[in-house]
Amino acid sequence: MSGHLFAGLDIGGTKALGVVVTLYNNYEVIATARDSSHGDGTALINTLAKLCEELASTASSAATPTTDTNPPTTDTATPIRFEAVGIAMAGLANRSGVVHYSPNLPEIVELPLAQGLSDELATRLGYRPRVSLDNDATSGTWAEAHLGAGRGCDDFIFVALGTGIGTGYVVGGQLLQGANGFAGEAGQMIVDINGPTHITGVRGPWEYFGSGNALERMGREAAATGGFDMAADLANSVEALTGRQIHEAIGAGDTQALRILDEYSAHVALGIANLVMILDPARVIIGGGVADIGEPLRSGIERELQTTILGVSHRPTPEVVLAQLGAEANAIGAALMANDLLDGTPENTA
Amino acid sequence: MSGHLFAGLDIGGTKALGVVVTLYNNYEVIATARDSSHGDGTALINTLAKLCEELASTASSAATPTTDTNPPTTDTATPIRFEAVGIAMAGLANRSGVVHYSPNLPEIVELPLAQGLSDELATRLGYRPRVSLDNDATSGTWAEAHLGAGRGCDDFIFVALGTGIGTGYVVGGQLLQGANGFAGEAGQMIVDINGPTHITGVRGPWEYFGSGNALERMGREAAATGGFDMAADLANSVEALTGRQIHEAIGAGDTQALRILDEYSAHVALGIANLVMILDPARVIIGGGVADIGEPLRSGIERELQTTILGVSHRPTPEVVLAQLGAEANAIGAALMANDLLDGTPENTA
Repeated sequence: MSGHLFAGLDIGGTKALGVVVTLYNNYEVIATARDSSHGDGTALINTLAKLCEELASTASSAATPTTDTNPPTTDTATPIRFEAVGIAMAGLANRSGVVHYSPNLPEIVELPLAQGLSDELATRLGYRPRVSLDNDATSGTWAEAHLGAGRGCDDFIFVALGTGIGTGYVVGGQLLQGANGFAGEAGQMIVDINGPTHITGVRGPWEYFGSGNALERMGREAAATGGFDMAADLANSVEALTGRQIHEAIGAGDTQALRILDEYSAHVALGIANLVMILDPARVIIGGGVADIGEPLRSGIERELQTTILGVSHRPTPEVVLAQLGAEANAIGAALMANDLLDGTPENTA
Repeated sequence: MSGHLFAGLDIGGTKALGVVVTLYNNYEVIATARDSSHGDGTALINTLAKLCEELASTASSAATPTTDTNPPTTDTATPIRFEAVGIAMAGLANRSGVVHYSPNLPEIVELPLAQGLSDELATRLGYRPRVSLDNDATSGTWAEAHLGAGRGCDDFIFVALGTGIGTGYVVGGQLLQGANGFAGEAGQMIVDINGPTHITGVRGPWEYFGSGNALERMGREAAATGGFDMAADLANSVEALTGRQIHEAIGAGDTQALRILDEYSAHVALGIANLVMILDPARVIIGGGVADIGEPLRSGIERELQTTILGVSHRPTPEVVLAQLGAEANAIGAALMANDLLDGTPENTA
């Protein structure tokens, strides 16, 4: 088994998630680990290396057959080796292994992350695994394509609604990566040229209106202006209101929360409609943390798309589905991409 | 030679253009013809059939060797046959041969155009050529890919600035057509959600700001408010001012006209920046009637892109070049697509 273990690391705006995936016969996540993603390049590399150590330790226990007479201990666990390690990260991160620019981690600029982690792992693990780097949503797209909601579809778009908006596209069965591997930054697409200024300094990008942060902002604004009475039951103050609590109110069927969701769904649909007119996909996969809302979000986006895509009565509308790999999609995708780096194609293709 | 002649027809918002192209060894346009594109489906089919008759007649003369002692006449001309006929049209037109919806020709809805033209040509020409149908900008993109400014580049976008904005994309050397052949409608991408209402009824699509019609509108608005004094020398009234005359003022180096061009270039760059963030092309090809302005337009767009693409200092910017096939690009592309329909790939590939 040790020849088929891959580590996948997903670096988000605030959190880092690691998984160990087996990629033979079927895929299986046999270990996970979490940490924060704060700090500069050196801190980030240390965080990721520590995650890998923890993953190796957990996976070693998991990979060792246990019986009542032979309980797992650190001493008896079979040491495992990672075939390769994949990193997924928001922003301009590509196969060169260098993070050029990441909107959510402004301290990280022109960082040779793959090389840095490879060096650190050589010291900590005693061997040097290959390390690949790709954009997070691109990785998530590849995971959904092979193991999730993209199976059986040659033309789909994946939209991850989280801190920001990440997107990825499969076109004619191929991952669309672009000339430099930077394709999929649709979250930065300007949809309101005279709109509010985003944290990136740009006015009116889709991400400002359609990200998980946007939903949180909309909930707080509604709470502050008397449009979301249930908020007072959920949080001590308007400022303390989180996305998780807005999900809760939606789940409870609160009318005001559902109205906020309607408006938010229209914002999400706006950017998706632009992508549909550009790429003409057969399927739209909604992922990221906000997708935990589930069916009310999916159906809201589907409904809003009907009024936003031009000429919609004269073309097939893409089906709108929820992602299947949840919060681990990007990390699993990073492991798949690391496998691709070694041999060209994943072993377990749909 | 007759086995290698293809007709390509480009249906614009107001004009129809036909070409006869030879596609062996190198491509050559041996005949052209023009007409208007007004009217309903029947009128359009008749217009196109007449164009084909005229093209066949002109091409027959062109294909007959002439000497002083053997002047070409209608009687002695070798009758030519079209191997196939390709149609390029704005809007939702695809390989099914049906025009589903065309923003600039609102009378044309769900029209089985390829079949209709094939029937009409069977009567008029005495044989039934295969007829293909594709989106106009998609056709133009394919023409530039094989015979024009896209040669040698596997990842480029083609932006045709005319009555509206048409776009097409080559990704990894392949034409991106989408699940239904409707990809490339970036002109309808919303960039100003609270902006002015376009002829399509949608608020603030890129086309409203960046098309040739937009440049004309900007020129007239400037002329009406004292911002374009040279307009009075060029046209009898503000209403009579055309794009051609604005080009003329730009060509003459008129400061006010150049200021209008700067603003227009920023509008064009806005949509291109969105496409660059989505598709990450290595090259941007500017075509359509507005591209006749040439270098001042190209350099203006290139300059504006530098301030519009997020993270531009951390990624290679695509080169911005002018299209090479001029007003005939879409029609030539339609002929190439007709050839593809017959045998899978054009004979004359770059």
